[in-house]
This record gives sequence, C-alpha cells and structure tokens, in this order.
Amino acid sequence: MNLTIQALLGLSICLNALFIFLGVWIIFKRGGLSYLAMRVPLLKKLGIQNMQGGSFNFPYYDHRKSQLALLPIHASDIVFLGDSITDEGEWVELLANPAIRNRGISSDTTIGVLDRLPDIITPQPQKLFLMIGVNDLSNLGRSPADIAQTYREILAQIRERSPQTHVFIQSVLPVHPSMFTGSATNSDIRALNEILQHLATEFAYPYIDLHSHFLDAHHQLDATYTIDGIHLNGIAYQHWADLIKPCVRS
Amino acid sequence: MNLTIQALLGLSICLNALFIFLGVWIIFKRGGLSYLAMRVPLLKKLGIQNMQGGSFNFPYYDHRKSQLALLPIHASDIVFLGDSITDEGEWVELLANPAIRNRGISSDTTIGVLDRLPDIITPQPQKLFLMIGVNDLSNLGRSPADIAQTYREILAQIRERSPQTHVFIQSVLPVHPSMFTGSATNSDIRALNEILQHLATEFAYPYIDLHSHFLDAHHQLDATYTIDGIHLNGIAYQHWADLIKPCVRS
Repeated sequence: MNLTIQALLGLSICLNALFIFLGVWIIFKRGGLSYLAMRVPLLKKLGIQNMQGGSFNFPYYDHRKSQLALLPIHASDIVFLGDSITDEGEWVELLANPAIRNRGISSDTTIGVLDRLPDIITPQPQKLFLMIGVNDLSNLGRSPADIAQTYREILAQIRERSPQTHVFIQSVLPVHPSMFTGSATNSDIRALNEILQHLATEFAYPYIDLHSHFLDAHHQLDATYTIDGIHLNGIAYQHWADLIKPCVRS
Repeated sequence: MNLTIQALLGLSICLNALFIFLGVWIIFKRGGLSYLAMRVPLLKKLGIQNMQGGSFNFPYYDHRKSQLALLPIHASDIVFLGDSITDEGEWVELLANPAIRNRGISSDTTIGVLDRLPDIITPQPQKLFLMIGVNDLSNLGRSPADIAQTYREILAQIRERSPQTHVFIQSVLPVHPSMFTGSATNSDIRALNEILQHLATEFAYPYIDLHSHFLDAHHQLDATYTIDGIHLNGIAYQHWADLIKPCVRS
C-alpha cells in the first residue's frame, strides 16, 4: 500500500515537473518576460509593460514599424493612425482613395503612437484619422484618465508641429465581452470616449462617434461585425468607411 | 510519515489537475481542436489540418478573408496574392502604384489560395504576383511534391479562367533556422523553388528568383532582413520592391 502511494507520488511529481518545464519553455519561446507582462495583469501593474514602450506584439510590431519608418508621408496624404483595428483595414480600397496611408500597427497604444508621431507629423499631412486607446485598457491596464494624458500629449504635438493638418478623433469601438478575451470593458471604453470628446472640444478637432454605430441592443459590439469580440470583419469595415466618407472627401 | 506522504500525494495530484485544467482551458480559449492541429505535428499528419482548408490563424484569417471578399478587383489591377509575407507589405506605397491590390492573408497556404482564387481571377486582373507555399511546409507538414500539385491546380485555373493575366511566380523566400520556430527547412524551400521553376516553364509564366537575393553566406535568410527568421522588416520589403519593380511597371 505504502509502496503504491510512493510510486503514485513519484509519478505525480514527475508529471508536475513536466508541466512546469512545458510552461516555462512555452513562455520562453513566446518572448519570455515581455510575453508574460502582456498576459499577466499583475505584472502589468508592476510596470513591466513599459519595457517596450507598449509594444508587445513581437515580431510583428517591430517589423511593421521598421517598414513604415521607410515609407514617406507627403503633405497631400491622409493618414490613418492607430492599432490593429486601423491596421487591418484596406483603407485605400475601402474609401477608393490612393492618398490614404495606413499607419496602424496591431497592438499599439497611445504610448506607441506618441513614440511614432514624429514620422507622421513632420511631413504635415493633409488629414489624420486617429483611433487609439483600447490596448492601453486591455494590454496595459491603464485607466481612462491615464490614457487621456498621453492622448492630450499626442494632440498637443500635432497641433504644435503640424497646425494645418485636419485631425479627426475617432471614438474607440465597443467590445463584445462574451467573445473577447482581453480585459478592456465597455464601461471603461465609454469613459474613455467621453474624455476623448472633451479633448476634441478642447483642441477644436472634430470628434467622430463611430461607437454608437457599432452597438447591439445590449450596448456591446454587435456580433454581426466580429468573431472575436474586438476585431472587425468586412461588413464592419464597409460600415466604418461609409460613416467617415464625408470627412475623407471634404 | 505515511500521512505526510499521503498529504504530499494529495497536493501533487491537485497540482496535476490544476495544470491539466489550465492546459485544456488555454487550448479552448485559443480555438480548440483547430489550434491544436496547428501546433502539434502528429495531428497534422492525421489530416486534422484540413478542417479549415489550411487557415488556422483564427480570428485574423476569417476577418481579413471576409473584408477582401467585399473589395472588388478590376481588370486594370495588379494583385499580390500570398500569405503573411505578402500581407505585411504596404505594396501600394512600396511600389508607388495605386493599382496594386494586396490579397495576402497571414498563415495562408496553397490550399487557402486555391479556395480564394475565384474572387481573384473572375475579374481577370492585369497582373498577378504569387508567393505561396512556406506555410504548407511549416504549418501543414506537406512535402514539396504535394504542394506542387496544389500549385499546379492554382496555375491551371488562372490560365483557364483568366488567360490575359500576366502571372509572376515568385520564389519562396529562405528562412533563418536559428531564429525561426516553425518547421519549414531551407532544403525543403529549395526543393519547392526548383519545382516552381519547372511549373513556370510548363505554364510559360515568368519565374522571379527572389530567394537568392535574400541569402547570407550560409545560404539562409540574411539576418539583416528579419527578427524572427521568416517575416520581413522594412529594408527587406524595399529590397523586394526594387527587384520586382521592372515587372510591375512593364
């Protein structure tokens, strides 16, 4: 009896060791500490998220950032700046406008956008459509008030260094909580959008409310627009393009 | 003593259960069986990979596919068709050509391209730049000879249904094995490229050798072009664009 229990204990401990080794190995393979910082909210709160200025989507973020840094922006261009929601849109085709430059990068935050801003605004583009902030909530665990500070810094730099640019502040879109695995909530998103509206008034830039056009009856992202509760399908992009078409053309 | 061992056994078994629960939960959250099929080579070989016609990159693949399905292609268009390596290029900007349509989707394979082909070739586009196959090796564990069969079917359909289209068969790019976590090898990639050259001759389509222009002295993807051994940074995309510019313009 005692022997059986000892054998079982040995087996069980070996299994645990194997599981722990597998876990460490997988985390190491996926980027080590940076990966952990992205997935574990406690580490985020300890400040580990600042290691890469808000960009955890290795290697995609770095590859795309290096490509965009080499592609020039002109004074006649219309820039779409943001995270994955902007990145994944084929804007030139959606809006039939070859002057559009997609400067979205999946996983980006207000911190990442602030960092990339010089490349965007030094050429003083004609128009700038901005949608950013949901990854600050979801990946960095920042509060709407915190995010607003970085957002204000973005707007202040644009106004100072590219005063002719027509800036459009697009609301952050809602999520569909039962599908979405991140930690951004619709109440935080609503709070952030309220702040963005105030910032738009303060800077005298137009605020585009997309949020209310993507809601279902329960005030969450309509499930017809998404399969993961945050990213968008083709119908959603056409809807978005229809809503901003007048601002892109004007 | 016996009691201590029993307590330890209980604790260890609880930990086993917790690890197993965590593993199952993570797999479920990431897409269940399809996710497993992508990550575990044995399951691939049992044919489970065919569940989604080669598209495992949920939800990105499905979202992008639905968007591209809504965006029309015209007879004057230049289509770039492929996987992530094509998807991640800002081709309109890289080649300063607004007629280019990016129809790359991250994680796609020859099977996925064959499935998407009707949308691409029914409008009979002017030109078609094709780069596909590395994910057949890496994610599906297919042999170069297997891949060639699907590739031939793609070319046969294009020639039959869009005979005026100028098709450019781009070689598959090398990988940098010590950085790359997937299972495609450079010897398989070389074998695949040899077959692609034969197919190009057979169909009388030009074959564009990009492969040799991205190699280092050890015949692997030059580390100056990548940080993960397979995907490309900005310098790589500019190099690629320079190499195909004459074919895009002509």
